[in-house]
Amino acid sequence: SRSINLAVIPGDGIGQEVVAEGLKVLSAVLPQDVKLETKEYDFGARRYHATGETLTDADADALKQHDAILLGAIGDPSVPSGVLERGFLLKLRFLFDHHVNLRPSKLLPGVETPLKGEPAIDFVVVREGTEGPYTGNGGTIRKGTPHEVATEVSVNTAFGVERVVRDAFARAQARPRKKLTLVHKNNVLSFAGHLWTNIFNQVAEEFPEVTTDYIHVDAATIYLVTDPARFDVIVTDNLFGDIITDLAAAVSGGIGVAASGNINPSREFPSMFEPVHGSAPDIAGQGKADPTATVLSVALLLRHLGYETEAARIEDAVSADLGERAGKPARSTSEIGDALAVRVAG
Amino acid sequence: SRSINLAVIPGDGIGQEVVAEGLKVLSAVLPQDVKLETKEYDFGARRYHATGETLTDADADALKQHDAILLGAIGDPSVPSGVLERGFLLKLRFLFDHHVNLRPSKLLPGVETPLKGEPAIDFVVVREGTEGPYTGNGGTIRKGTPHEVATEVSVNTAFGVERVVRDAFARAQARPRKKLTLVHKNNVLSFAGHLWTNIFNQVAEEFPEVTTDYIHVDAATIYLVTDPARFDVIVTDNLFGDIITDLAAAVSGGIGVAASGNINPSREFPSMFEPVHGSAPDIAGQGKADPTATVLSVALLLRHLGYETEAARIEDAVSADLGERAGKPARSTSEIGDALAVRVAG
Ligand SMILES: CC(C)[C@H](C(=O)O)[C@@H](O)C(=O)O
Ligand SMILES: CC(C)[C@H](C(=O)O)[C@@H](O)C(=O)O
Repeated sequence: SRSINLAVIPGDGIGQEVVAEGLKVLSAVLPQDVKLETKEYDFGARRYHATGETLTDADADALKQHDAILLGAIGDPSVPSGVLERGFLLKLRFLFDHHVNLRPSKLLPGVETPLKGEPAIDFVVVREGTEGPYTGNGGTIRKGTPHEVATEVSVNTAFGVERVVRDAFARAQARPRKKLTLVHKNNVLSFAGHLWTNIFNQVAEEFPEVTTDYIHVDAATIYLVTDPARFDVIVTDNLFGDIITDLAAAVSGGIGVAASGNINPSREFPSMFEPVHGSAPDIAGQGKADPTATVLSVALLLRHLGYETEAARIEDAVSADLGERAGKPARSTSEIGDALAVRVAG
Repeated sequence: SRSINLAVIPGDGIGQEVVAEGLKVLSAVLPQDVKLETKEYDFGARRYHATGETLTDADADALKQHDAILLGAIGDPSVPSGVLERGFLLKLRFLFDHHVNLRPSKLLPGVETPLKGEPAIDFVVVREGTEGPYTGNGGTIRKGTPHEVATEVSVNTAFGVERVVRDAFARAQARPRKKLTLVHKNNVLSFAGHLWTNIFNQVAEEFPEVTTDYIHVDAATIYLVTDPARFDVIVTDNLFGDIITDLAAAVSGGIGVAASGNINPSREFPSMFEPVHGSAPDIAGQGKADPTATVLSVALLLRHLGYETEAARIEDAVSADLGERAGKPARSTSEIGDALAVRVAG
């Protein structure tokens, strides 16, 4: 009999509320014969304030025992900027080698976009998750003096670039439009740019059915607001991916519906799924947060574990729910979760 | 008697056409007593193909003799990506220490934005122009092999950050709203982020009237499409500035009207003014290019040289011209230039 052994990290702020709804929908969608086991972890601001820890070796070992991780949101104004980001979120991406950071953008019917003309937005960004300027390489000399010099080193390896480019080609190949766009800044960042462009062109030869395209990251932000329908799959580096996926979320309905997966395709370590939004402390505990992004992250999680039918059922339920929202009074976090749970079960 | 000794670099593609209109409007706006001297330079793809050179030491020495530089556009598909960018555009920014890269965004009446609700967009981005990941630091080992490693080093100095932050504070102080936003990614790029944030906070103490704000670059792209009216002056690093100013141009009327200045505030070397758009080889030579961005760059040039009245006259003329475009048949490049020349003279 099948089973899912899930690590649940509600985290901070609205993380608690949205994860509860994600689990509600997950339980509702799973067939009877799938045994769902969950274990909750207290990472985030609470743990940090209580113990000064963000993620210990023992924590990492415990997380490794799970099939996947569902995360709400990490971050609180009471913790200095960067501590939880680098000490937990990024640490986990690196420890568990989450090199495919998957961020789909789809403008669903009934969802408002800030763009005129209701463009047909339906693309996926494959963001590299373990290299680039995110490695923490760099340093500071003469700190705090008028002669301070601070460096950040973007590290790019053929190994790291090729695996994520290959993953993106495979995803493009599996989609109807079969189009892959490389986003970089190879006219300025020529060392990394050459590596990315070269490997992209090499791997392209193995995927003759995939149409390819290259766009500088600055120009990509223009297209994301003037012609987002042109994109199908985008592959890009860690930092560019961070930037353009927030913009992509904004144009395709906002971070209330943006889901993401931090994926280790080899399954050597568990992958982690989380909404793109943060912990939104200003509305925490009020039942105002929209759990949709978390529920869609659960769909990505199920697809990763091989439950394609259930993933699609969640996505259809979300589409239907969003399509019926217009003109109705706002619902609470749990009301939206309840409605989605009913739909996926039905 | 006053004089302006201008270096003119039409460059490639539509550069030729738009610069001609920029000069037309410049001649029309200048008072009789100001003597305008111009000297044209052939930098860009033509020179590169003819001689293999992009910018020689003798070229740089010649350019140094001018009060300012007006540039059309550089770049052509016949030249490998990066050669003219690094060999000319960036080389000049570094040689002439253009550390203030000024990029205003204003949604003028009659101009179409891709955003719903016609937001009141009126901000200026002060982009650092001589540091960050643009310095060319970095390298490649084992090039072309499966073990290639390519690095890009972002270099940030207290000297370089402080002068641009100070410039941005002064600009914010001089504007009615007096608001300055630092855009960075200090939760991940902690070495550079700490330097930027620290200096920003220090300089803020000298400008108690300026309201300050910090936003991560990814979140900034969200605000640029959901609430661009919140921005007044933005200061940011070279790469983040590159990315967000293209987005800013897109939301505030497109690159057809986006002007920029590569400024050396000390006037040790001439500053360079150019439209944000590229050489657009697909429409070159057809009289289809909109010279407005170049004309607005001429306004920035005049303001830099102390001709505030004339700069404002150009900006008013452009506003009036744009406001009357709706519903009229498209005009050619020179027709728009003629109309603007008449307005500024009148
Ligand atoms: C919180 C931060 C470290 C993170 C990132 O920069 O990757 C976030 O912005 C994201 O996109 O997941
Ligand atoms: C052409 C390129 C080198 C340049 C840059 O990246 O600065 C351009 O995009 C710009 O914004 O002026």
